[in-house]
Amino acid sequence: MASPGSALKSAWNRGADLLESGAWRNKTVLITGGLGFIGSNLAIRLVELGAKVTLIDSLIPDYGGNLFNINGLEKALHINLSDIRDRFSMEVLLQNKQVIFNLAGQTSHMDSMRDPQTDLAINGAAQLSLLEQCRAVNPTVRIVFASTRQLYGRPQYLPVDEDHPVDPVDVNGINKLSAELFHRLYHNVHGLSTSILRLTNTIGPRMRIRDARQTFLGVWIRQLLEGEPIDVWGGEQLRDFNDVDDVVDALLIAGEHEGLSPSPYNLGSSETISLLDLARMMISIHGKGNLNIRPFPADRKKIDIGDYHSSYARYQQATGWQPSRSLAHTLERTLAYYAEHRNHYL
Amino acid sequence: MASPGSALKSAWNRGADLLESGAWRNKTVLITGGLGFIGSNLAIRLVELGAKVTLIDSLIPDYGGNLFNINGLEKALHINLSDIRDRFSMEVLLQNKQVIFNLAGQTSHMDSMRDPQTDLAINGAAQLSLLEQCRAVNPTVRIVFASTRQLYGRPQYLPVDEDHPVDPVDVNGINKLSAELFHRLYHNVHGLSTSILRLTNTIGPRMRIRDARQTFLGVWIRQLLEGEPIDVWGGEQLRDFNDVDDVVDALLIAGEHEGLSPSPYNLGSSETISLLDLARMMISIHGKGNLNIRPFPADRKKIDIGDYHSSYARYQQATGWQPSRSLAHTLERTLAYYAEHRNHYL
Repeated sequence: MASPGSALKSAWNRGADLLESGAWRNKTVLITGGLGFIGSNLAIRLVELGAKVTLIDSLIPDYGGNLFNINGLEKALHINLSDIRDRFSMEVLLQNKQVIFNLAGQTSHMDSMRDPQTDLAINGAAQLSLLEQCRAVNPTVRIVFASTRQLYGRPQYLPVDEDHPVDPVDVNGINKLSAELFHRLYHNVHGLSTSILRLTNTIGPRMRIRDARQTFLGVWIRQLLEGEPIDVWGGEQLRDFNDVDDVVDALLIAGEHEGLSPSPYNLGSSETISLLDLARMMISIHGKGNLNIRPFPADRKKIDIGDYHSSYARYQQATGWQPSRSLAHTLERTLAYYAEHRNHYL
Repeated sequence: MASPGSALKSAWNRGADLLESGAWRNKTVLITGGLGFIGSNLAIRLVELGAKVTLIDSLIPDYGGNLFNINGLEKALHINLSDIRDRFSMEVLLQNKQVIFNLAGQTSHMDSMRDPQTDLAINGAAQLSLLEQCRAVNPTVRIVFASTRQLYGRPQYLPVDEDHPVDPVDVNGINKLSAELFHRLYHNVHGLSTSILRLTNTIGPRMRIRDARQTFLGVWIRQLLEGEPIDVWGGEQLRDFNDVDDVVDALLIAGEHEGLSPSPYNLGSSETISLLDLARMMISIHGKGNLNIRPFPADRKKIDIGDYHSSYARYQQATGWQPSRSLAHTLERTLAYYAEHRNHYL
């Protein structure tokens, strides 16, 4: 395992800079998927920064939305429970917003293979509809779209930069690619102000841990909390992880950075780690736990991508962003969060 | 203008080879979009080859379907008027077929920008649905998907080969790319036998000439027949053109060639010509006519791609296919067809 933290620069708190600058004070912000993992962490930060936040979330049970994610902040922001596929309500919700963080999506790769039309409806058609409606009712809004490293498929070289060919290995990746291309097209042809971030694995409080629909890490945390052995499939695969607070930093920077290219930017980390070492690190931080190392299941092997880590150099050059939280720190605060609030997530 | 025919090899009639081999005799074949330009030419050839042909076509007025296209063959094949978005009828129609030529699509780039959801429904969602149903009810069927050079966008180099990055410049290109990726994914993950041909501009009898929804060439033919000047926008842009009979050859070869890669193959021509020279050639063949050279309209400029021609070397290497009809021959037979049957197309 790469030594955690060794390659990380001294802590760099973009959030504090923004607080000082007052850039987000009274800004009207819409977050689609705002009760989900990343959306809720972003919403909490934006409330701290003085923004006027509206959340949209469908609370579909298999997805990441959870009302507890914004516990205590219910009066500090506006929650609109609805589905981004509902065209007419979206048309009203999109109006009078200065920034849209477009995070709503179906995230499960296995679900996208079992029910590809739902994945297409949410990750493709609803995205196109959102852009069409922005064009009609709010053409000057700033839009930041959260995409995924999943659409690179099996890496041809490491670290994977934005010039790496895309080759999605599942329906989810194909539809997320379409959504990216729609965002870029609406910039190029219709002049919408869109930016795209391709997120890698993200960790932190408020992620779904009931099952692996959002990330395998959720299941690992559940297994650890429930005293079960952590199921590691294979284990040699390298991955990179971002603390959700670093991802929130990156989203906020993109939200105020009108000059960014409409082409995608990778997030990523200079820390890479094998899944086996990650599991061991979690057990070590938790103070107890066991591993159950298993061969990779046949039905998942076809859509597995082997080793993966991103180069985030392009985004760093454009904006100065870099991850500042070590993996050890992230795992500690994440496990502490679930130790305290597990009943809201199981 | 490149000298027409000079670079073309001696005529090579793949259709005749197939007729001799009897490969298509009694084969059960489904053609989606079978009353359209390419679909109907393919259907006519397949009937000649003794195949049992079923056509699906929605006859949506703005699209390419035209009952006259199979005039006289109504009893030699089965016509099923329906929409590929109709899941349950498709499920029955897909059964007991050995080969599916999947040609149905929305083809107008301007329409895809005006009504992107319909383009997505037909070119994206319905394609995914067709593949899902094949997987369920006919997993051994051979599927040939007609894609388009449009998804390369503005060429970075010429001729454009399959390694050229894709960068669709309109909603249609994005959805056709998704459909390609779905076809490839269903091969890689579910074992369906799929192949993809990326067609360049195709000319021949039975294309839509009422307007430019299928190809600008349709409008030019209409203008020529009606004694109006041919509207040439710009005119310097280079293009390549395939005779629809060469495209039918290519489709038939793909239909019987199970060993083809599921990755896309370009069609194309060794003859390239500027649009202005093409218009002049049409006037010369027709014996009369005028040009109206106009600046490129602003709303189309954003989605124009400049010069384009394809390399078809990869498909030639894999199968031996090459275009054998000269552009002059193609224009002659096409203009003769519309001179005789114009009332069915205007």
